Amino acid sequence: MEFELTILGSASATPMLGRHHTAQVLTVGREPYLIDCGEATQERLIEQRIRFGRINCVFISHLHGDHFFGLFGLLGTLHLQGRTEPLRIFGPAGLDEILTTQLRCSGTPLNYDVDFVAVDTERHQLIYADQLVQVYTLPMRHRIPCCGYLFREQPRRRRLLKEALPDSLTPEQLQALTRGEDLRDEAGHVWLRHHDVTTEPPAPRSYAYCSDTVYQESLAELVRGVDLLYHECTFLHEMLDRAQQTGHSTARQAGQLARLAEVKQLLIGHFSSRYRDLQPLLSEARREFEPTQLAVEGLTVTL
Amino acid sequence: MEFELTILGSASATPMLGRHHTAQVLTVGREPYLIDCGEATQERLIEQRIRFGRINCVFISHLHGDHFFGLFGLLGTLHLQGRTEPLRIFGPAGLDEILTTQLRCSGTPLNYDVDFVAVDTERHQLIYADQLVQVYTLPMRHRIPCCGYLFREQPRRRRLLKEALPDSLTPEQLQALTRGEDLRDEAGHVWLRHHDVTTEPPAPRSYAYCSDTVYQESLAELVRGVDLLYHECTFLHEMLDRAQQTGHSTARQAGQLARLAEVKQLLIGHFSSRYRDLQPLLSEARREFEPTQLAVEGLTVTL
Repeated sequence: MEFELTILGSASATPMLGRHHTAQVLTVGREPYLIDCGEATQERLIEQRIRFGRINCVFISHLHGDHFFGLFGLLGTLHLQGRTEPLRIFGPAGLDEILTTQLRCSGTPLNYDVDFVAVDTERHQLIYADQLVQVYTLPMRHRIPCCGYLFREQPRRRRLLKEALPDSLTPEQLQALTRGEDLRDEAGHVWLRHHDVTTEPPAPRSYAYCSDTVYQESLAELVRGVDLLYHECTFLHEMLDRAQQTGHSTARQAGQLARLAEVKQLLIGHFSSRYRDLQPLLSEARREFEPTQLAVEGLTVTL
Repeated sequence: MEFELTILGSASATPMLGRHHTAQVLTVGREPYLIDCGEATQERLIEQRIRFGRINCVFISHLHGDHFFGLFGLLGTLHLQGRTEPLRIFGPAGLDEILTTQLRCSGTPLNYDVDFVAVDTERHQLIYADQLVQVYTLPMRHRIPCCGYLFREQPRRRRLLKEALPDSLTPEQLQALTRGEDLRDEAGHVWLRHHDVTTEPPAPRSYAYCSDTVYQESLAELVRGVDLLYHECTFLHEMLDRAQQTGHSTARQAGQLARLAEVKQLLIGHFSSRYRDLQPLLSEARREFEPTQLAVEGLTVTL
């Protein structure tokens, strides 16, 4: 089953040619989860051929425009596409008022319901779960309320050992075995142990999205060991003062956090427009943590 | 002096690869006037190398998202660029509430003032004038309040005939002559007639922007003889019913209006995403009015 992240935008607040505002899609199975939604995210989704009618959950980190101004256009296009299923939007309080005002003043009621869930950006807690993933908030420290999101795949099914299976099991019996259940006869006696005909499932995968924030060592505990960590790095470390003033991190700090948290891979993004060349940011992060990549437009990381 | 129009977006509500939401810039002299501001207009301005710090007036036709969702990002970027001069925004009532809510909920006060002017979309009237242009509303008939804008260049200066000018005129005297004033001595007697040393100024140029609307013959009187008319044509005429239901026009109707109004040139735009190939729309309009062009991204028409 797919578990992959596609980067739609790498820019910080000031966009530039070819560098767009923050948005990402985590695809689990056939389910795309949209994470932040900077201006023109719908155009990025079209470019990446991601069918956005399939999106059911959107996670907004904070209310700076470069992280959510694309929501209005996306909602409108979903309406025009004839969507009827509700859309769930997670984000800081205030976003619902913005959306409601917009829709009312422009006289465009939507065909579908928007279920807005205000998240507490100060706490690390489970906010959503479905058959595929659990999603937790990650408190960020920025200039306004802001949180990241941690996606943990639900435990996967055990794998069937075809050569060890007796013939003529029903689909229901096969399903039970992959869930780790033994098969019993009418008297309740086990006649087939799941351990004998299945192997351990692959480990659940995880992705942590750390949006705009100053460096916080406390994050390391919350994202320990994740398969993929995204951490913003708006500046090089030589601009640490500016990073702290504006509520951002440096490339070195992103690398430090990844090392401290013993994650498997690091993605860095949200680059200041002062950096036309991103290699110095990548090099700086890699000196702290080698398995680092630039989170640039169109990059897909498959876990 | 420049008087030219640049098209930033040709799409109607549903965007597609390479076709963006409506926005245009009319540049008069060094002054860019922004007309509508669909999502990601700031990226289009960057692509076209239009310095948007110079924009002082924005004209919004109506509150469907494909005509104004780019305003938020643009306002934010102007703030980050350190703008301090006020920005004037003309548009239907309601836009001010949307902007105010957005700025308040996202905790981002701007460095500069936004002077919002609510326009009466039902009337044809002068709403703005500066040294370069006069701007009038053009009532549209759409699903929500909507107006177009008519730009009329201010009368230009008479041209000096160098060979006919006496030596040693002061700059002030030359200026007076180009304004059509005669020069007089201290006793009030004319000693140099402007007619003898200047020629008639070139005719003022004009541009009419007809945003989303059904066909209205009454528009012809308001835009009679303009140098350039933009008229939406969302559909081919075979879809006239759909055009009327959705408050739009057909390519044939755009051509008919241009012919009826005896304009010099016609631009058609706001194409439905059902038309991958725009040639049929162009051909249909040209059968009514030959000097027609497609208003596609990056097109610049110099008048």
